Amino acid sequence: MKTLSDAFEHTLKDLYFAENTVVKALQTAAGAATQKDLKEALKRHADETAQDVEILRAVFQSIGKKPEGEKCDAIEGLIQECKGVIDEATGTVARNASILGCCQAIEHYEIARAGTLREWAKALGNVEGHALLTQILDDHKAANHKLSHLAITEINRPKVERPR
Amino acid sequence: MKTLSDAFEHTLKDLYFAENTVVKALQTAAGAATQKDLKEALKRHADETAQDVEILRAVFQSIGKKPEGEKCDAIEGLIQECKGVIDEATGTVARNASILGCCQAIEHYEIARAGTLREWAKALGNVEGHALLTQILDDHKAANHKLSHLAITEINRPKVERPR
Repeated sequence: MKTLSDAFEHTLKDLYFAENTVVKALQTAAGAATQKDLKEALKRHADETAQDVEILRAVFQSIGKKPEGEKCDAIEGLIQECKGVIDEATGTVARNASILGCCQAIEHYEIARAGTLREWAKALGNVEGHALLTQILDDHKAANHKLSHLAITEINRPKVERPR
Repeated sequence: MKTLSDAFEHTLKDLYFAENTVVKALQTAAGAATQKDLKEALKRHADETAQDVEILRAVFQSIGKKPEGEKCDAIEGLIQECKGVIDEATGTVARNASILGCCQAIEHYEIARAGTLREWAKALGNVEGHALLTQILDDHKAANHKLSHLAITEINRPKVERPR
């Protein structure tokens, strides 16, 4: 990677791999969650993330490249963490709260990377890429905001736990 | 993990491991960056993160436990990604912009986990833990904000790149 254009293309491939992987991870998380609103929120965001994959394909087009993913250690670690809590969190409240927390960490990763790519697109004069990446950034910020609201209002409820 | 208290303790151990690991990763990133303001910002935040490790020790105390880390796949993946760009990004602009972007992804992870733990502390009636975690959350939000500002104003400058 010699230039900012090289870094843009490399990071775009990372994010393309990440978003593709996250679609499945969110579906798994939705299946593992037991609280209705959380299940629905995760399913809905899996669908939105699948749409973001399509938007990323248009970003590749904006730089004249074919969509291609590149293995991303960061998202694999984040998803591994989510799988870990699905296996280990057996109590209802702990399970839903932990799954939600891990999914927010995944959203934050996507926010960070889409935010970086969006600014690089601007610096590189890629107006179309900037607009498309802003859309992806806004999607993930909105999803994260909804998850925060759900956590505070419905999921983090230790008082309804059965005594151990 | 049966209860929200169990999930809190587990995630606290994850974050303790993560923050400890991030101190070294930020020092490495500062050494690998070539732009002066970025180097200084990363060094300064490595010091702040070391202080956050101390604050986390007080959070353990607030639940009557000894500080203990637990291997965290997510932060290891995020740091691996940062090491990857240090190895691969050879051009000055690509190098500094990529390092900065990876460090922002790391900050976002810490923001996500401190935010989750902070809300869990509140739900569990741990007033002291809530206040301490709010401090950690605010530190990482401020660091991320400074990095965003630096990226936009100084680092993302493709025009000063040498032609390939």
